[in-house]
Amino acid sequence: MQELEKIIGYEFKNKKLLEEALTHPSYSNNLTYQRLEFLGDLILDTVIGIYLFKKHKDKKEEFLTNLKASYVNRNYLKKVCDEIQIIKFVKHKNCNIKRTDKFIEAIIGALYLDGGWRVVKKFIKRFILNRELEPLKDYKNLILNYSLKNKGVVPEYKVISEKTYHNKKEFVVEVRIKGIKKKGKGKGENKKEAEIIAAKELLQKILGHTF
Amino acid sequence: MQELEKIIGYEFKNKKLLEEALTHPSYSNNLTYQRLEFLGDLILDTVIGIYLFKKHKDKKEEFLTNLKASYVNRNYLKKVCDEIQIIKFVKHKNCNIKRTDKFIEAIIGALYLDGGWRVVKKFIKRFILNRELEPLKDYKNLILNYSLKNKGVVPEYKVISEKTYHNKKEFVVEVRIKGIKKKGKGKGENKKEAEIIAAKELLQKILGHTF
Repeated sequence: MQELEKIIGYEFKNKKLLEEALTHPSYSNNLTYQRLEFLGDLILDTVIGIYLFKKHKDKKEEFLTNLKASYVNRNYLKKVCDEIQIIKFVKHKNCNIKRTDKFIEAIIGALYLDGGWRVVKKFIKRFILNRELEPLKDYKNLILNYSLKNKGVVPEYKVISEKTYHNKKEFVVEVRIKGIKKKGKGKGENKKEAEIIAAKELLQKILGHTF
Repeated sequence: MQELEKIIGYEFKNKKLLEEALTHPSYSNNLTYQRLEFLGDLILDTVIGIYLFKKHKDKKEEFLTNLKASYVNRNYLKKVCDEIQIIKFVKHKNCNIKRTDKFIEAIIGALYLDGGWRVVKKFIKRFILNRELEPLKDYKNLILNYSLKNKGVVPEYKVISEKTYHNKKEFVVEVRIKGIKKKGKGKGENKKEAEIIAAKELLQKILGHTF
C-alpha cells in the first residue's frame, strides 16, 4: 500500500478507502472496489470534461464529447493502469483480471472521498491528462481515408460478440481492410465505441506507432 | 431573465452565461446552450452520484446506478423543466422544442461556472433531488409482476424507431400487455433505458397515478 501511495504521490488519511478500492469480490464479499468505481467513474468524467471545456473554448460540444472519450475509454485507462502497475496491488483470489481500468476509477473515487476535489484533480492531471490525445471519433475517418487511398475499398467492421454484464453491454468489434493482413479489435459499451477503438488499433498496426 | 433568476433563487454575476444556456441554435449561431449542456450533464451526474453514494452506504453499485438513472433521465428532467417553466425563457425561432431537459443541463453548467460547486449543488438538491424516486430498473419488474398476476402473460416490448443524432442513439420503445388497451412509450439512449421508461409509463397509466 505504501508503495502505491508513493507512486501516486498521495498518502491516504483513511487507509481503508485505498484498500477497498483495491479489493476484488473474489477476495472478500465485504468492501470491494465497485461502489468506489461507481463514484470514480463519474468524477473522472467530470474532471476531464471541465478541463477540456475550459481548455477548448472555441470548440463545439461534439468535439468535447469525442475528446473526452479518448481519455476515459477503457483501453486508454488500462495503459495508465499498466504504468502505475495497479494490478500488483489488487487483492483477488486466482483471478485473471482484465478490466484493470475499473481499479483506477475506484482509486479516483477513494482519492475524492479522502482528499476532495483538489487531490483528485491533481491525480487525474498527472496520470491521465498528461498526454495530448486526438478526439476518439477521428480514428474511423482516418482509417477510412487510408483504406480508400491505398486499397480503394472501405474498411469492414464486424461484431464478434455482444454480452451484458449487470446493466452494461460489452461489444467486441473487428475491423479489416481487404488486401491487408493486419486487423484491429476493439471493445466498448456500444458498437460505435468498439468500432472506433478497433479502427485506432488497426491504424496503429499499419502505421507502426502508437498515438 | 430576472424572473428566471428569481425562480431558481440565484443571481448570476455573469448574465451572459445564463443567456448562453437559454439560446437555441435556431436563434443564434454564436453562443448556444450545447457546450454548457455538455458540462451540465457531467456535473448533474456527479452531484447526484455523490449524493446517493453518501446517502445509501449499504447499497451496491447496481442500485446506485439505477437510482441515479431515475434522477437524470430525460423524462424526469422534463418534468422538472415544466415546473421551473424554463421553456418560457428559451430564445428560439419557430421551434417546437421537445428536449427541454437539455436546457436544465445547460443551466446547471452555467450555475457551476458562475457560482461553483456550492451553488450548483444547492440548485440540484432543491429542484432535482427534492423527491424520493425508485431505482429506474425496478419498473420493468413491477410491470412484469402485474402482467403475470393479472393477465397471465409477459409484457411485449417493441422498438418503434432507432435514430442517431450526432454521436447519440435514440431508441423509442412501446410496451403492451395482451388484454389491456393502454400502452407505454419510452425514449432512451439505449434499448434498455427506453424499455424501462415505457414500463414506467404503462404502470402509471394502469395504476392511475404518477410516481
